[in-house]
Amino acid sequence: MHLKTFFPILEWGARYNRRTLTSDLIAAVIVTIMLIPQSLAYALLAGLPPEVGLYASVLPLVAYAIFGTSTALAVGPVAVISLMTAAAIGRVAVEGSADYASAAIVLALLSGVMLTLMGLLRLGFIANFLSHPVISGFITASGLIIATSQVGGLLGIRTEGHAMPELIMSIVANIGAINMDTVAVSVVALALLLWIRLDLRNWLARFGVAKGLANIIVRTGPVFVVFLTMAWSGLANLSSKGVALVGEVPQGLPLLSLPSFNLDTVQALLVPALIISVVGFVESISVAQTFAAKRRERIDPNRELVGLGAANIAAGLGGGYPVTGGFARSVVNFDAGASTPAAGAFTAIGIAGATLLLTPFLALLPKATLAATIVIAVLTLVDFSILKRSWAYSRADFAAVAFTLAGTLLLGVEVGISLGVGASILIFLYRSSQPHAAIVGQVPGTEHYRNVKRHKVETQPGTLSIRVDESLYFANARYLEDFVLSQVAADPSIKHVVLLCSAVNAIDLSALESLETIHRQLGDQGVRLHLSEVKGPVMDRLAGTDFLAHLSGGVHLSQHQAIRAIADAPEAAPIPRAV
Amino acid sequence: MHLKTFFPILEWGARYNRRTLTSDLIAAVIVTIMLIPQSLAYALLAGLPPEVGLYASVLPLVAYAIFGTSTALAVGPVAVISLMTAAAIGRVAVEGSADYASAAIVLALLSGVMLTLMGLLRLGFIANFLSHPVISGFITASGLIIATSQVGGLLGIRTEGHAMPELIMSIVANIGAINMDTVAVSVVALALLLWIRLDLRNWLARFGVAKGLANIIVRTGPVFVVFLTMAWSGLANLSSKGVALVGEVPQGLPLLSLPSFNLDTVQALLVPALIISVVGFVESISVAQTFAAKRRERIDPNRELVGLGAANIAAGLGGGYPVTGGFARSVVNFDAGASTPAAGAFTAIGIAGATLLLTPFLALLPKATLAATIVIAVLTLVDFSILKRSWAYSRADFAAVAFTLAGTLLLGVEVGISLGVGASILIFLYRSSQPHAAIVGQVPGTEHYRNVKRHKVETQPGTLSIRVDESLYFANARYLEDFVLSQVAADPSIKHVVLLCSAVNAIDLSALESLETIHRQLGDQGVRLHLSEVKGPVMDRLAGTDFLAHLSGGVHLSQHQAIRAIADAPEAAPIPRAV
Repeated sequence: MHLKTFFPILEWGARYNRRTLTSDLIAAVIVTIMLIPQSLAYALLAGLPPEVGLYASVLPLVAYAIFGTSTALAVGPVAVISLMTAAAIGRVAVEGSADYASAAIVLALLSGVMLTLMGLLRLGFIANFLSHPVISGFITASGLIIATSQVGGLLGIRTEGHAMPELIMSIVANIGAINMDTVAVSVVALALLLWIRLDLRNWLARFGVAKGLANIIVRTGPVFVVFLTMAWSGLANLSSKGVALVGEVPQGLPLLSLPSFNLDTVQALLVPALIISVVGFVESISVAQTFAAKRRERIDPNRELVGLGAANIAAGLGGGYPVTGGFARSVVNFDAGASTPAAGAFTAIGIAGATLLLTPFLALLPKATLAATIVIAVLTLVDFSILKRSWAYSRADFAAVAFTLAGTLLLGVEVGISLGVGASILIFLYRSSQPHAAIVGQVPGTEHYRNVKRHKVETQPGTLSIRVDESLYFANARYLEDFVLSQVAADPSIKHVVLLCSAVNAIDLSALESLETIHRQLGDQGVRLHLSEVKGPVMDRLAGTDFLAHLSGGVHLSQHQAIRAIADAPEAAPIPRAV
Repeated sequence: MHLKTFFPILEWGARYNRRTLTSDLIAAVIVTIMLIPQSLAYALLAGLPPEVGLYASVLPLVAYAIFGTSTALAVGPVAVISLMTAAAIGRVAVEGSADYASAAIVLALLSGVMLTLMGLLRLGFIANFLSHPVISGFITASGLIIATSQVGGLLGIRTEGHAMPELIMSIVANIGAINMDTVAVSVVALALLLWIRLDLRNWLARFGVAKGLANIIVRTGPVFVVFLTMAWSGLANLSSKGVALVGEVPQGLPLLSLPSFNLDTVQALLVPALIISVVGFVESISVAQTFAAKRRERIDPNRELVGLGAANIAAGLGGGYPVTGGFARSVVNFDAGASTPAAGAFTAIGIAGATLLLTPFLALLPKATLAATIVIAVLTLVDFSILKRSWAYSRADFAAVAFTLAGTLLLGVEVGISLGVGASILIFLYRSSQPHAAIVGQVPGTEHYRNVKRHKVETQPGTLSIRVDESLYFANARYLEDFVLSQVAADPSIKHVVLLCSAVNAIDLSALESLETIHRQLGDQGVRLHLSEVKGPVMDRLAGTDFLAHLSGGVHLSQHQAIRAIADAPEAAPIPRAV
């Protein structure tokens, strides 16, 4: 074990030079400008004061720079995790209270500790249980909920809830209280942000701006909308016209400190913290792997867990809320040429500086601008094509997507993703509990044996060859018993049963007992049981039991050898009775 | 669909004659005598008045006689379900209150409705998820808890709780209040019951009593202990010496009626009812199948669910509590020659008669007699050999047993069995998420391909053949990516990769995406991807996708054909680039 296993910074730090410094610095400046409006907006989405978003964009970046492995990943507040944070802490504290902000900190700390432990215990594989269809459904549903949750901010009315039914009802209930000045700000901000995203690149190209520069301008464009609406707010005194502004915020960065919290809060946040950790990790690791593949680098999921854990602990200590690696900011970081995690540390310095400089002006910023920023940012999350793809491929995958999507929209983020994971595991268990089994015969002219129903094959009279297409375990142990015994009951001429085990990857104790039952009942009818093509790991396990010692037939390397052995010596020895 | 599918009584009723009537009547008399002390005792174990055990042994037997399929199964109160009932209703009502008794009725009705629905929806396979190791661990732990819970009754002290730590602490706390007269009754009852169970058979044999009759005397022996201690209680006026007696009980049978209950109770009992239903069904179906195998009959799990559901609904309507098919009484029923479910109906009449006659005398019965009956009955449940067997076979199976055993002992029946099922499913998922994969080569002189590490095989230069020993699904999709790409990265001479899919029983959408990634990345390195021995059901699914159309290599019927095809035309066509 090298120290650099735990501190990847020692690895890339040793190779650091002026060239990497320059590219990291440039990337940091661009990402800083892009992060400012996003951080403010996502904090608002989490129900927190906007400056908390800035706090969550400082220390976590430094922590990830020390412990993380991805050279392109940029951590910080992201849309889906912000929504999940709001849903989690909204249950233990009232939005706007001091308890609410400290609950966010507790959530970040819990999530950080969980991620770090998962990394140290090498539990990175847990992320695999969030299948791609489930994640797609979840992200799409979250995007829709987030966009809907911002309608209140765009119209200047109050809304409540973190799932569609509540949100829509509260919008309908308060629709009469629309503030037209807020709507004006929203329309301008939305129009500008959409134009920046859709048209600005072409427009710059027509003026001969280089593609790289144009990309940077497009990515950093939203910060200009922030400045514009801030100026509008100050000049037109929008506050007096009922437009909600961000308002007075404390200047400077919070000191490192632990919040005061009680054990009840911690207990209530354990499950949400676990779900947020896993979702955040899956989002982050897929972003990191995408960029690693482009640079032919490798990402170690367990080290990434530690990196992300450290970032979240830092978020908690720095007065922020749960963070993860975001796709949009990582794209910018990558495109701008960030070559080591140091780019993140430089970004942190940039945001810290901006926090000190910006806070006096933030008071004037209309909340509607931030709502518009969120809506435009999450539009890219909504993608229903997974419904069509999964429907075309298999109803089971479609069911997992549909459960996640509907569950998240109607019942909220935590229930939704839990339903999705639960549904995909149940579908998998159900399928493996109802295995496919085929009677096989020899493909003429080969030593290959295939399903009699699908291929023209030759079978041997008196011998029944059955291929079981599943590992044998408790959930399907009885199925095999039924299948074999009913096949043998249907044909009294059968004297040998060969179980072709090429698809049997494991046999557990329950299944072993079923095999013993099958063996005993076949023995009672004078039928021998043979096994063929038993895999090494399965054979290792069976070798330690009585089963093979008493087996009435043989264990054959291949199905073909089994058939030849039976043909050569069909009545080789009396059947020993199983005890 | 025939009417007799739903009413098995129509099937055996048509064949009913004097001979079957005689054997059924004899069996009924013996089972009735055996059931009386057991029913009283198990009701006490459930925290209910003893007569409730008799009520639960009347109507359920009639309902099972109409809807059930097993000819030997005897339903009624059983030890484990009584303990689970106590644990479940102890949380919603105080023992001894009217609410407690009606909660037991609600539990029986809920369980009955759930079992019936599961049967009609053909969900009998759910029982498979209670693996044999889990059930064994659960029954052993339950036996220990039940025996410990009766220590209070044997010593005449109060105890509380349905898990070991509480029970032991309450015994220790009240140990000073021991009543010596109660202990005297307990010692006599235990000694007699043990003697009946262990020695009576030999003793009768020495007096020349026929084996069949001796068996019947042994089985019905406990009823004499009941009469003996009842007489002792009356003659010695044990009540005045502080011995707890059963006391005044209402005479006659309760009228068919629904209890008054509120929705909160129903909601609180939903999960316990589900667990009780599944455990009861598993216990019942294994007993039924054991006897069916002896008579070469078949048991349809889904019809059994309906039969058991009807029995539980009847238990609720008749003022009882949850019932299931018990092993001990079914053995007696079978040994005594019961030949149709009518034997159960006759037993019901016997118990009903006994209820009317016995209730005046029950007031005198010491509770210690019933505690002794329970302790002797559950001793047979305790069997630690499964720990040794499972340890020898596989650590995973052992873990499932150990989790269930420890969880049940320490945290109670519901948590214990849920932990066991959860652990066995998690272990299965973990294993299948970390699949075994092998590089294979040709076994010389055959067309068979096996693991290069375990067999002397020949490999082909430039071609890497990989056998994946697991279905490909979301939990292991990334694993294959890592395995294939790292193998190829290690050997630049590789131009062809053949995935031998004989053990791949399914490919879900996540895994298809991984295959596409592998295909694209291999393509980037100029390596072709081939598939061989793809099973019919998997091929059907892949055929509907773009994947096969773009595949750079071929899809081959057998691994041998794949190797030959590559040898014949290694550079057959340019690799099409995946889109």
